[in-house]
Amino acid sequence: MQPPVAHITIKKINAGEQTEVEDELAVEEPLEIQLAWQEAAGYVQKNISVTMRTPGQDAELAAGFLFTEGILQHIDQIQHIHPQQNGVLVTLAAGVTPQLQQAERNFYTTSSCGVCGKTGINAIKTVPVYAPQADALVLPANTFYGLQQTIQKKQVVFESTGGLHAAALFDVEGNCILLREDVGRHNAVDKVIGAALLNRQLPLHQHILLLSGRAGFELIQKGVMAGIRVIAAVGAPSSLAVQLATEHNITLIGFLRKNRFNVYSGAQRVKVS
Amino acid sequence: MQPPVAHITIKKINAGEQTEVEDELAVEEPLEIQLAWQEAAGYVQKNISVTMRTPGQDAELAAGFLFTEGILQHIDQIQHIHPQQNGVLVTLAAGVTPQLQQAERNFYTTSSCGVCGKTGINAIKTVPVYAPQADALVLPANTFYGLQQTIQKKQVVFESTGGLHAAALFDVEGNCILLREDVGRHNAVDKVIGAALLNRQLPLHQHILLLSGRAGFELIQKGVMAGIRVIAAVGAPSSLAVQLATEHNITLIGFLRKNRFNVYSGAQRVKVS
Repeated sequence: MQPPVAHITIKKINAGEQTEVEDELAVEEPLEIQLAWQEAAGYVQKNISVTMRTPGQDAELAAGFLFTEGILQHIDQIQHIHPQQNGVLVTLAAGVTPQLQQAERNFYTTSSCGVCGKTGINAIKTVPVYAPQADALVLPANTFYGLQQTIQKKQVVFESTGGLHAAALFDVEGNCILLREDVGRHNAVDKVIGAALLNRQLPLHQHILLLSGRAGFELIQKGVMAGIRVIAAVGAPSSLAVQLATEHNITLIGFLRKNRFNVYSGAQRVKVS
Repeated sequence: MQPPVAHITIKKINAGEQTEVEDELAVEEPLEIQLAWQEAAGYVQKNISVTMRTPGQDAELAAGFLFTEGILQHIDQIQHIHPQQNGVLVTLAAGVTPQLQQAERNFYTTSSCGVCGKTGINAIKTVPVYAPQADALVLPANTFYGLQQTIQKKQVVFESTGGLHAAALFDVEGNCILLREDVGRHNAVDKVIGAALLNRQLPLHQHILLLSGRAGFELIQKGVMAGIRVIAAVGAPSSLAVQLATEHNITLIGFLRKNRFNVYSGAQRVKVS
């Protein structure tokens, strides 16, 4: 299922000539994520987040968001996901209370990083469900060479709009298992991890997470939460992204191209023959 | 003053050859924005946001954030901005209460869009201080042609790291007045608008706001708050960005290149001779 596009008539101006043409835009709409659960005192329903996203795979987005933010820890905690008009209501299984206190706060925020808005700087780190373990994963360098081309071919809506980020999951042989597109890069990652969560595929110890853009702290943290050990980005990593990847023994690759890339951490998993 | 960079040794892998090289990363660190003001009941100090940003111009970032989010409406409401270690404390002038209720909420969020986390979908729109007015602003198409090259030349740290977004303010003759870089695109815009606010240059009715990347809803909204009438992005706009620009009679340009661009709204201000 492809992400939706909006059609519009625009003016193209090229070297002093103007023409009216039909064009396509990536669709951006708000999605409200609500949680409902039972407490001793009664039924609780709470707005958790409003995120600007590209419609489609809203259940995956909500599940992935709740998991990668540390609010939920396991798929069995979810009883049902009810799609609504520009909203999703997630009801929790009996006895489950969402972990709201870790990131509790009473203030606003805005940022392109997504970790904003939690009470104080110490609250920006989530607590991973999957503890780091020793592993013997080693991937030949040429496993990575074709990954960008693979997602480029699949990014049909990016091709027509230029307006979508992508996140994709590959197996260790370099086969693309999942690809999701969104106007928000964090949403694309949440959709991929949410899909894997709903498919009971977590932890993703034997997968590569591919990012179509840059790798910031928060995207690495989402990968950590899902048990990812190898992250490859087409764009640049930030200083804090490299620091977090190093702490969690994640192999972080940046500037991924057809036959070259940079390794910022976890180089022991990349074999150059 | 250039944004800071972090130095790191990385492995470059190119067609099966690996080399160790020194590399530079864009710095990403959390910034906590706190507000302090006097109420009848006493002194109030509150965490407003933690945003992941590139250090530098933190006072501008805080001022711009508070203004573009509708929490403050005028520079005179700020008594002082106190820089702290990865934090900024903004104290308000006597009698000023921040407009927290508009976006009040008691939940978390994450998103690359930045409008997330406000209670409910109706809360995503801020209330502009500067009402739209009729204007006769008309810019020749060639005013826009060179803007991208101008900021590319000035983006020194992007050149070495590939990891920074830029936002810039141009006058209607195409002269660059301000340029700010940040790992977060919203932060770059907040820094530019914050700098203009601190310089008492608002409303920015006679300026062009240039974005180095894509144009989403929230960046357009920040422009609206500052009285901007012309926004030009190097990347693609989203559907909601075009809708908001149209509502506010903003000229929105996308895919800006050396001698061509697309006009998505407000085409009456672009003159093609």
